[in-house]
Amino acid sequence: MTNETQPTALDLPMVDPLPEETQRYFDICVEKLGMVPNVLKANAFDIDKLNAFTNMYNDLMLAPSGLSKLEREMVAVVVSSINKCFYCLVAHGAAVRQLSGDPKLGEMLVMNYRVAPLDARQRAMLDFAEKVTKESATVEEADRQNLRDVGLSDRDIWDLANVIGFFNMSNRVASATAMVPNDEYHSQFR
Amino acid sequence: MTNETQPTALDLPMVDPLPEETQRYFDICVEKLGMVPNVLKANAFDIDKLNAFTNMYNDLMLAPSGLSKLEREMVAVVVSSINKCFYCLVAHGAAVRQLSGDPKLGEMLVMNYRVAPLDARQRAMLDFAEKVTKESATVEEADRQNLRDVGLSDRDIWDLANVIGFFNMSNRVASATAMVPNDEYHSQFR
Amino acid sequence: MTNETQPTALDLPMVDPLPEETQRYFDICVEKLGMVPNVLKANAFDIDKLNAFTNMYNDLMLAPSGLSKLEREMVAVVVSSINKCFYCLVAHGAAVRQLSGDPKLGEMLVMNYRVAPLDARQRAMLDFAEKVTKESATVEEADRQNLRDVGLSDRDIWDLANVIGFFNMSNRVASATAMVPNDEYHSQFR
Amino acid sequence: MTNETQPTALDLPMVDPLPEETQRYFDICVEKLGMVPNVLKANAFDIDKLNAFTNMYNDLMLAPSGLSKLEREMVAVVVSSINKCFYCLVAHGAAVRQLSGDPKLGEMLVMNYRVAPLDARQRAMLDFAEKVTKESATVEEADRQNLRDVGLSDRDIWDLANVIGFFNMSNRVASATAMVPNDEYHSQFR
Amino acid sequence: MTNETQPTALDLPMVDPLPEETQRYFDICVEKLGMVPNVLKANAFDIDKLNAFTNMYNDLMLAPSGLSKLEREMVAVVVSSINKCFYCLVAHGAAVRQLSGDPKLGEMLVMNYRVAPLDARQRAMLDFAEKVTKESATVEEADRQNLRDVGLSDRDIWDLANVIGFFNMSNRVASATAMVPNDEYHSQFR
Amino acid sequence: MTNETQPTALDLPMVDPLPEETQRYFDICVEKLGMVPNVLKANAFDIDKLNAFTNMYNDLMLAPSGLSKLEREMVAVVVSSINKCFYCLVAHGAAVRQLSGDPKLGEMLVMNYRVAPLDARQRAMLDFAEKVTKESATVEEADRQNLRDVGLSDRDIWDLANVIGFFNMSNRVASATAMVPNDEYHSQFR
Repeated sequence: MTNETQPTALDLPMVDPLPEETQRYFDICVEKLGMVPNVLKANAFDIDKLNAFTNMYNDLMLAPSGLSKLEREMVAVVVSSINKCFYCLVAHGAAVRQLSGDPKLGEMLVMNYRVAPLDARQRAMLDFAEKVTKESATVEEADRQNLRDVGLSDRDIWDLANVIGFFNMSNRVASATAMVPNDEYHSQFR
Repeated sequence: MTNETQPTALDLPMVDPLPEETQRYFDICVEKLGMVPNVLKANAFDIDKLNAFTNMYNDLMLAPSGLSKLEREMVAVVVSSINKCFYCLVAHGAAVRQLSGDPKLGEMLVMNYRVAPLDARQRAMLDFAEKVTKESATVEEADRQNLRDVGLSDRDIWDLANVIGFFNMSNRVASATAMVPNDEYHSQFR
Repeated sequence: MTNETQPTALDLPMVDPLPEETQRYFDICVEKLGMVPNVLKANAFDIDKLNAFTNMYNDLMLAPSGLSKLEREMVAVVVSSINKCFYCLVAHGAAVRQLSGDPKLGEMLVMNYRVAPLDARQRAMLDFAEKVTKESATVEEADRQNLRDVGLSDRDIWDLANVIGFFNMSNRVASATAMVPNDEYHSQFR
Repeated sequence: MTNETQPTALDLPMVDPLPEETQRYFDICVEKLGMVPNVLKANAFDIDKLNAFTNMYNDLMLAPSGLSKLEREMVAVVVSSINKCFYCLVAHGAAVRQLSGDPKLGEMLVMNYRVAPLDARQRAMLDFAEKVTKESATVEEADRQNLRDVGLSDRDIWDLANVIGFFNMSNRVASATAMVPNDEYHSQFR
Repeated sequence: MTNETQPTALDLPMVDPLPEETQRYFDICVEKLGMVPNVLKANAFDIDKLNAFTNMYNDLMLAPSGLSKLEREMVAVVVSSINKCFYCLVAHGAAVRQLSGDPKLGEMLVMNYRVAPLDARQRAMLDFAEKVTKESATVEEADRQNLRDVGLSDRDIWDLANVIGFFNMSNRVASATAMVPNDEYHSQFR
Repeated sequence: MTNETQPTALDLPMVDPLPEETQRYFDICVEKLGMVPNVLKANAFDIDKLNAFTNMYNDLMLAPSGLSKLEREMVAVVVSSINKCFYCLVAHGAAVRQLSGDPKLGEMLVMNYRVAPLDARQRAMLDFAEKVTKESATVEEADRQNLRDVGLSDRDIWDLANVIGFFNMSNRVASATAMVPNDEYHSQFR
């Protein structure tokens, strides 16, 4: 794999050659997604950092959870919309379009989640995502109870809080480093 | 180790018994810090999540970097002050007091970092932390150049952005779950 | 033309039958755009209001001006992004994609105009759009001079201010009435 | 009519001579109001723009509506107070004093509408005006229902949303161009 | 003097009869101002509080200072405009009209001080008032130096900071208690 | 008493020698508190200002009231936390630790009062303090009624509003002048 486009505004070239395991992981990305997401290339100047990132990402977004993968992607997009993170809106907007099969839903979450037709559970999750993103210091027991009232378990609330937190991290890293989303995302699943 | 106080408002008991490696890690915490930080207990209901958290944390805060450990803790406190995260202010405020040997510095960063007597490099780092925390979407090349102008390398900027991001995640998880800091921190290094 | 979907959350049926001139105008829309934009249907319960709206819209967005049609649409999208107006982001995002032939530019302006590669003139126009949208009371002579410095005439500044103002009106009317964009826009010019 | 004072900071002289119909309209203004409002002079560099403005203004503020002319002026002042638009506060503050015969009411709406003694219907209208002005993206069906609950029809809601929208446009155009209110307004109806 | 109108929403009747010295002070108010300002009546349920208030007020607003009495009133109005305090805008707006002999200046400061034609010294003072009112934690040496650069002494800066502080107190007390300005102010000095 | 450290960034030396009564007051401070608080030294360049300040302070914070001295200090800290005033957080944080005998409570109020275990009355008082500090113009009768519902009399509400107001003044004066808290506070009552 060549590194023709720099994934961020920082001059941090990937380890070259990549360790075998990393190269295998990137090959799988190309096979499954048609590309290596730039966030991975951006981390690949230091394999420990790359691994720490992918381990956390994969646990949060792909491991079994009471929140479906689509729901986790919906949360990712709503958080990224509040933070106006171009990288994450492009990448996870495409994921919502793919997982939902509903391109309009992806657009709604990017632009203003309040216009989306959601059931009570999903609406409560996204309202919580907004509150935790904008004013986490004001969250109180009543907010957690709202989530339990629409069916979330305490484990689900943990997962939800961590997905919200993760994208508040990723959004900031991406914007602070001018991370560029792969071109492939833009036209996918429209 | 007993689990007498619940580390968050969520009912997520630790795996019992802990895997040997985790137990060893917790024993080292007790030996070195006099306690197991509640953020670790909170994650210990699922060892994969605990490991993902500690791997990222240890890489960011303890691995070699152009940013000193004290500087990384200073950033942690300033981010947590903006987000008004009780858990992180208590735990990382103590760390700043310890690493700097300057209890007043810890208080200044908790309360209003602008009153602290800082050199240009540290001030630029904390101003960047504030901007990325409050309005990451407005970060541009000029902001990164400011950091280079006070001596940060591109690698340092990556590390800085990731520490800022990490505490924007942790603050939100802690506040969303009502994570309680260990009592020991409050009186330490005063 | 039938009125199968209600264009807003308000129960305000179109005049039926439409006056001949209005019907002709709608027919031209269908011919040129493949649809009658819902904002027109929404106004068509009162032909005087519809005419007042279309006269102002057409003068602002289509009449000769020092600002190109694309530039006016770019301003429309940036204002709508700040106000998170679903209707206008969908409709005018499509217009930017069409007029620029650059789908990525449309996405950038919807998500965070600061990531778009713009020349100094366009960047100054969009920065002015942001300031006037968010804090118009702080605009002063220096802001107008910035625009003159990148080549805008006083007439161009008038046009720019009015396009910004117009979408601050339209965004609010659309959001206040839950105006629904025509489905056709979503996949156009991707 | 002479053009001794420039109505804005932009150098855009009125068409000279004015078309007959425009001159007649300005003459009526002088006769009825004792002046030609500067917003009209500001638009008079291009008669199409002037006509588009006056048509929309007159339809919104003077045409039959479930909202009284005073109520529409009250909305204008509250929106302009949030946006701190000097031109509109002066001109429409005078209109509220005139139409209500209550100079104190005009002051209250300019300064802080919450101190004004209002019936439930007017209070709901002004609360809606504040919400749509400050955070239109959060308006939902419950907000419209609040208005219906105090007696507004869907047509009234349309009119209200459009008056709110219109002054969010006018405030921005006036502030962006440094539009100066006619001196006559200041001491009127005190 | 009768107490026919309650000066606030709190049921706190004035000491009755007033102590001789207080009654004399109120009589002087009536003689000089044509009324006893309601803020004095509001405090008169406890003569110690009334005296503490009037001593501080008179020292700040009337004692010799490098800031003229008009300048102190201008600061009072700008702070009150930011805080949208009806009582203080009415009372001190009248004072600006009186002391300046320029009713339009009073209106400008109530509505948006940026439109007022001010010299550099007064503009710097009002910009400082805005910053200290809105975000006092960000004031730094450069802000004080700006004031020195337009001619303020350190003593003047102290006086300025205290006038700004005082109205941030009074605005909040007045709004928190629904303090009502005397009717006489509204039409004065127009 | 010597004046070795300047209490603010302004060059305003204390009257020298101090009037006898002032010197006596400062001697009592040293005897009781182990220091003369810097806010007193800062005012001592003008004895009238010093007296106006201490009279108001002592009446508000020490005179009999339905609010306990601890409650008044709690309000002081919450207001100062919102305004991020280093001087007042240090000085009044120490006072809360002293009066409550609960160092953790002091930290909670400095960092985020919502995490503190409070009874309904104290919580209502602190919520009111937050609202009056952040958006006093929106306070209405319902807010006062909330306070009455948890047992506050109208006199208590007056006292509460004035303590809130006072620290909104003091915070701004301290931050605007870079007032430095006495070192003694930092380690007290930990």
